[in-house]
Amino acid sequence: MRLQGIAVSPGIAIGKAVVIGQDSFSIPREYVEADAVEQEVARFREALQVAAREIENNRDLVTRELGPKSGAIFQAHLEILEDPKIREDVESLIRNRQYSSEKAVSLVLRQFAEMFRRLPNPVIADRAYDVLDIERHLLRALLGQPHRSLYHLTSPAVVLARNLTPSEVANLDRKMVRGFATELGGPTSHTAIVAQGMGIPAVVGTGPFLTEVSGGDIVIVDGDRGIVIVRPDESTLREYEEEARAIRAFITELEKLRDLPAETLDGTRIEIYGNIEFPHEAALCLQNGAEGIGLYRTEFLYLGRNDLPSEEDHYQAYCEVVRIMGDRPVTIRTFDLGADKVPLQLGLEKEANPCLGLRSIRLALRYLPLFQTQLRAILRASVCGNVQIMFPMISTLAELRQAKLMLAEVMEDLAESRIPFRRDIPLGIMVEVPSVAVTIDRFLDEVDFISLGTNDLIQYTLAVDRTNRNVVNMYNATEPAVLRLIHHVIQEASRKGVPVSLCGQMSSHPLHTMLLIGLGLRKFSVAAHSILEIKKVCRSVTVQQCEALAKRALEMDHARDVQALLREQLIKLIPAFSRIM
Amino acid sequence: MRLQGIAVSPGIAIGKAVVIGQDSFSIPREYVEADAVEQEVARFREALQVAAREIENNRDLVTRELGPKSGAIFQAHLEILEDPKIREDVESLIRNRQYSSEKAVSLVLRQFAEMFRRLPNPVIADRAYDVLDIERHLLRALLGQPHRSLYHLTSPAVVLARNLTPSEVANLDRKMVRGFATELGGPTSHTAIVAQGMGIPAVVGTGPFLTEVSGGDIVIVDGDRGIVIVRPDESTLREYEEEARAIRAFITELEKLRDLPAETLDGTRIEIYGNIEFPHEAALCLQNGAEGIGLYRTEFLYLGRNDLPSEEDHYQAYCEVVRIMGDRPVTIRTFDLGADKVPLQLGLEKEANPCLGLRSIRLALRYLPLFQTQLRAILRASVCGNVQIMFPMISTLAELRQAKLMLAEVMEDLAESRIPFRRDIPLGIMVEVPSVAVTIDRFLDEVDFISLGTNDLIQYTLAVDRTNRNVVNMYNATEPAVLRLIHHVIQEASRKGVPVSLCGQMSSHPLHTMLLIGLGLRKFSVAAHSILEIKKVCRSVTVQQCEALAKRALEMDHARDVQALLREQLIKLIPAFSRIM
Repeated sequence: MRLQGIAVSPGIAIGKAVVIGQDSFSIPREYVEADAVEQEVARFREALQVAAREIENNRDLVTRELGPKSGAIFQAHLEILEDPKIREDVESLIRNRQYSSEKAVSLVLRQFAEMFRRLPNPVIADRAYDVLDIERHLLRALLGQPHRSLYHLTSPAVVLARNLTPSEVANLDRKMVRGFATELGGPTSHTAIVAQGMGIPAVVGTGPFLTEVSGGDIVIVDGDRGIVIVRPDESTLREYEEEARAIRAFITELEKLRDLPAETLDGTRIEIYGNIEFPHEAALCLQNGAEGIGLYRTEFLYLGRNDLPSEEDHYQAYCEVVRIMGDRPVTIRTFDLGADKVPLQLGLEKEANPCLGLRSIRLALRYLPLFQTQLRAILRASVCGNVQIMFPMISTLAELRQAKLMLAEVMEDLAESRIPFRRDIPLGIMVEVPSVAVTIDRFLDEVDFISLGTNDLIQYTLAVDRTNRNVVNMYNATEPAVLRLIHHVIQEASRKGVPVSLCGQMSSHPLHTMLLIGLGLRKFSVAAHSILEIKKVCRSVTVQQCEALAKRALEMDHARDVQALLREQLIKLIPAFSRIM
Repeated sequence: MRLQGIAVSPGIAIGKAVVIGQDSFSIPREYVEADAVEQEVARFREALQVAAREIENNRDLVTRELGPKSGAIFQAHLEILEDPKIREDVESLIRNRQYSSEKAVSLVLRQFAEMFRRLPNPVIADRAYDVLDIERHLLRALLGQPHRSLYHLTSPAVVLARNLTPSEVANLDRKMVRGFATELGGPTSHTAIVAQGMGIPAVVGTGPFLTEVSGGDIVIVDGDRGIVIVRPDESTLREYEEEARAIRAFITELEKLRDLPAETLDGTRIEIYGNIEFPHEAALCLQNGAEGIGLYRTEFLYLGRNDLPSEEDHYQAYCEVVRIMGDRPVTIRTFDLGADKVPLQLGLEKEANPCLGLRSIRLALRYLPLFQTQLRAILRASVCGNVQIMFPMISTLAELRQAKLMLAEVMEDLAESRIPFRRDIPLGIMVEVPSVAVTIDRFLDEVDFISLGTNDLIQYTLAVDRTNRNVVNMYNATEPAVLRLIHHVIQEASRKGVPVSLCGQMSSHPLHTMLLIGLGLRKFSVAAHSILEIKKVCRSVTVQQCEALAKRALEMDHARDVQALLREQLIKLIPAFSRIM
């Protein structure tokens, strides 16, 4: 079985599949050994009892609090749970097909829910959710909390899941997880960014396929082409193993560039910084020769926990990176959270269009204590090294000034408490909302540096949600309007002498390196694993070549023509890149 | 009680409240007469029996199809329904407080659901939905299908609702509905547009308040200031009645402008076109002196029905407007539907950010037969009058060319079938995605006219969902970046001699008229009710005044400063506008 998804983290992974089931329950084993069948049946029966006790407790609680009539709903759940038909079906799947309890429970109860759904009355169809509730009770009884097994892999594997959250990816054991593929997700989702940072090959957005994979099947994840192959034939497997070897050889060659500068053939010095999501990634950046951290995302501090991070949590995380980077610049971006990824404590309402909603700096200015805590920590860390502060998703001057006012207030508080900080900490903004790109001249007077956030800039400029598979084909970094805005921003910043970098994923792909140099960019901030590739391109071109290329690109009408041009030029210079294009 | 919402359709409405309850159930009466109490109790008991029979039927169906254990869920619902506590609570509210059955049922069952929600276990809390299901059964038994009463008002009223869909608003009886206010909704939602077109004063996005209003309460809806006042005191009521009189006087004065041209004091001719949603609105535009239809939205053809509109449905709707408008231009915009408002037949998946998703021209190019049907009808109508065709939400040149190719294909089909059409039908695009505004020079060579769709353009440029109350305060037509883009587009179009109009809601507000003239705009397309106001401004200013104003506005940093400037200038010229600012 061969699936086309979206390539989000390069490289090839070959290994045995571990399948994470729906609703966040990992089904670690699909089958049991023939001689373990009776043991498995016993395990299922025990789970039945545990689930029954849980539902009984709920029933009793409700009966006590709300009266016996309300408890009846749970009594009904209990009766479904104890339906002999269900028990027989599950046990027969275990005994006759050697299914694991989890797989058998999931199959039987989902079929049952499906029968509800097919009934012609929507009021009845909704009761399918009751059945799925019961499934979850049973799976919890069998497995404990969701996803537990994901963190306890004992042998190298390729992880297949409906979806993985960024923190789930971040917690993957890099020694054991060779790659992953998910049914959902888009090219620049947070999950993708984390995978890139960890250097784990990944494909997302394949569409449904998990029901046809069993744990232990051989799977190939081609993170360059966005392909997932389940149970490949002999020749495909051999081809991919060959290719993986060639990639390793190219990487070995790239590694020789580590301590060399990113200088073009005609002597123009390009700076390459690293983007990081988690503190430990800083070491990898440094190892690959990063001259600083151009983007330190701080959302990880808020996600995957039940409380809010303390000032100390922030401070420690920042100091860790500063320590690793020595006197190199570390650009800390204040939190970029939204209604779709936000600490539960804020109790935000669901938004119809979270990308255009209360997120990022807007959220910070709404929940000031949250913002102040982070600002205090960044300022405290500013005396430990070369710290810069960056505000995300600024869209108006009023907003920037309000954020600067907050920073000044926090500085006053610190000064009053005699806590040391750098008053002249360099302050910058992400240029990722079209309004800022269009009026960048106004903003340049009020900041020390800017960083082009192309992920969002492309999204808003083209009105395309990059995680929506229906329109992701329209999401192109090389659209003429995008190139024009990038060019405009870089030119204006250069004219005013304000340092400008580009930290969107666009900069991490070698396809765009020449174009960006040609548009005037001299500072790249890229994923750790891309540093050497980008350096390789910089050291293989002249600025003149790049400018000629950019000029041609700016005159083109279509993104795909620009891409073809870039591909052709890059491969001419460095044939080894041909496989990833 | 005084509420601040979002003003979406101007004017003042004073009248008795009709409250549309949650979940689309209208609760027509909140109270019953003292001597009708026993009759009301009897009505409730009857509804109880009807609901019980319905649930029994569901139980029996499920028991038959899925076995008795599954039927038990409905048995549990039945037991809640027959809980003597619920019956007693409802009957006591009817007897002791003269609540109507609907109000009493809703109150008691919602309180009961709330008790579930408060229980500490989320699995239990979810059962609140079961209770709400039972509420709906009862309300249905009492009221029949949802919203029925909305269309059967027998006396003038102010409608209050959680939310109203555009087609619900469109179906309001203008003779009976003086105004409306909704808890949900944003400033430029479709509902707002429809209300403006119908000239019904409206306020949306007030937040929750319906539980505190009873049917029959006196309510004031101030559609200029976005204020809703429930049970106003005497003096407030008198003030508002006075103001309503003053507005009527101003309107009478405006009506004298009907047959006069929109010409500035220094003799520059401004064209004023109308925006319409429904065919019958064309007559109102014409009556107010519109020189054509600059935007004929066609979504109404698709909404509020179960099948897709036929070519004939389209054709008839277009001919109706063309007939009304005679030889004046009628600009038909192809459908602007999205995953959030789309014919069910397409079975589109829900999108995380529908504003950035598969909508509008993207949808048209994905579902070609849908698009072709509309194109055929527009082309057929083109020989009946002065028809123009306009594509919405174009974001790239490739997309425009693809749409033009489709149009050419449909023309060939018609020619082959010897069906007459105008081959040189003028073709234009909406400029509403930032990418098009930024590279407008490329697009101008390929179209006959353009129309600035500021509603979306502002939204994408600032990354602000205009229907999201958390961020709507950031949605400003006068943001410097927005003004710069509008200016750029108008200048480029003028340079190339391509007609440019502005059909977003921005053009319908007299506050912006001078600014837009100053930015170079000579063609406005506005809601029918705004035509005379805009004409009034045009006839009160000189182009020089406007240009000086625009120059100052373009230099300002903040939207609110620009607004203050515009307000000051307009009121200086025409004091009567002071109340709507």
